[in-house]
Amino acid sequence: MIDVCLLGTAGMVPLKDRWLTSFYLTSGGHSILIDCGEGTQIAMAEASCRLKPIDTICLTHFHADHVAGLAGLLLSMGNAGRTEDVTVVGPPGLAHILQCLLVIAPIPFKVLACETDGTKEMSLNCGDMQIEVFPVEHVIPCLGYQITMPRAGRFDPEKAKSLGIPVRAWSVLQGGEPVKIGETLFTPADVLGPDRPGLKILYSTDTRPCETIVAYGRDADLMVLEANYPDDEKIDKARQWGHMTFAEAAGLAKAAGARELWLTHFSQSITDPKEFEENATRVFPNARVGVDGLKKTLNFQD
Amino acid sequence: MIDVCLLGTAGMVPLKDRWLTSFYLTSGGHSILIDCGEGTQIAMAEASCRLKPIDTICLTHFHADHVAGLAGLLLSMGNAGRTEDVTVVGPPGLAHILQCLLVIAPIPFKVLACETDGTKEMSLNCGDMQIEVFPVEHVIPCLGYQITMPRAGRFDPEKAKSLGIPVRAWSVLQGGEPVKIGETLFTPADVLGPDRPGLKILYSTDTRPCETIVAYGRDADLMVLEANYPDDEKIDKARQWGHMTFAEAAGLAKAAGARELWLTHFSQSITDPKEFEENATRVFPNARVGVDGLKKTLNFQD
Repeated sequence: MIDVCLLGTAGMVPLKDRWLTSFYLTSGGHSILIDCGEGTQIAMAEASCRLKPIDTICLTHFHADHVAGLAGLLLSMGNAGRTEDVTVVGPPGLAHILQCLLVIAPIPFKVLACETDGTKEMSLNCGDMQIEVFPVEHVIPCLGYQITMPRAGRFDPEKAKSLGIPVRAWSVLQGGEPVKIGETLFTPADVLGPDRPGLKILYSTDTRPCETIVAYGRDADLMVLEANYPDDEKIDKARQWGHMTFAEAAGLAKAAGARELWLTHFSQSITDPKEFEENATRVFPNARVGVDGLKKTLNFQD
Repeated sequence: MIDVCLLGTAGMVPLKDRWLTSFYLTSGGHSILIDCGEGTQIAMAEASCRLKPIDTICLTHFHADHVAGLAGLLLSMGNAGRTEDVTVVGPPGLAHILQCLLVIAPIPFKVLACETDGTKEMSLNCGDMQIEVFPVEHVIPCLGYQITMPRAGRFDPEKAKSLGIPVRAWSVLQGGEPVKIGETLFTPADVLGPDRPGLKILYSTDTRPCETIVAYGRDADLMVLEANYPDDEKIDKARQWGHMTFAEAAGLAKAAGARELWLTHFSQSITDPKEFEENATRVFPNARVGVDGLKKTLNFQD
């Protein structure tokens, strides 16, 4: 299972009652944080999301509202007792940006820059979660993130018995490791059925609608997408600044066949984003307007 | 008059219910901000302190809790319509720090770095407020700030009449400008009494007690001092990390003969700083524990 929390829902400027957009995922003691604007560490404290287990920080792009909280967050992770390396993923230029931002922050652990080339996809792991990085379309290079948790096939005890594998070795094979019985090496494939559907989450902010989001979001359990502008009246602004409307984000979730959509990254001109929810649900009924601290536990389906 | 607001009272880490320490002063449409940690721009919004009039930002030092909010604040000042230059004052290395921090922030006005040499005093103006910068004693180079508003002497109408200065010229001289009557040049000194006491505010955080604070705080109307640790049990930590206890801060206000003292920059280990107020008032009765958003209007005394 993966626990997720939408830490904030503001775009561009942190407001008195709305933290900047960022997203926290945690599973089996490993956590991923996507984006880290000014105040994200406070939003995490409010939502009771722990700092120390963050192994990977994924940055969509280098606008201040997505990255200005990084130095403070890493310092606070150090204060929380973190000593292990932390990987930061981001668009081209990441190493230089980190060098600059951390000039005010003596971090007591290694910060590893994992820089994409800005056009191609990239994969990495965080515990049992797998992260796929892909380009989206903003006014500067920007990345979307797909997080999946694969799930092995069902264990077949009859097959294990017929192969003469003793019961004490079953859990090893179920756990994905091979086991040697006498002279014979058995692999998980010998006793597991075909892979079962795992979990898939897609996160993308600061982008126009684009094909990569639909492709990576295919059949996602949850999509978290920006919806900076409420309606079509703002479509010119959305195009100019590389953002989406509520309806455009909903259109992507529909095209991808996602189960659920959370909207976020609302323009400060929107006082109550909930008022415009129908602009999204008309297109994709299982859309909802995100609120700061919105949480969900995603479980395998059977 | 000068309006002041203590925007936050936390040290090191922004908390759910405590913004990082920073201080806002405004007079006649010109504002000074001292320090700008993560979240300061949100604290300003909560306290209804305006972004746009900030002409001068004074940084005590380059630890993240005093400077990590700078990029976001300057961006928001731009969004608020600021186009005029902004001066940033700070210890040696300021120009480099600004270059680094602003790598994520395309600021639509000039940011002028006013870098001290870290040991000597420096003066500059912000509207009618005069800023004196002086070194204090922290674990890295750190500055204290004295803000004064001088006040001219009382106008003497009998003297003006006896000198034959026509009434229409009185306000010019009262305003501090010379005026020519016939062939004679009259200066304000001709019609004004001796300078009267103006206003003086002293702000210093992240420091051990030191002589410069007492000297610059002499007879101050208000001192705002850090009190990171509540009592003498923590004196070793205070010495190690370059901070003060409640009693040490109060001792400086007493030695300076200040009128009033606000304490701030409380360690996160202090849940309720008010509980320890007596540790300061025992030494200096007019000390008070600061709270986020604490405001005061300082007026000339008669």
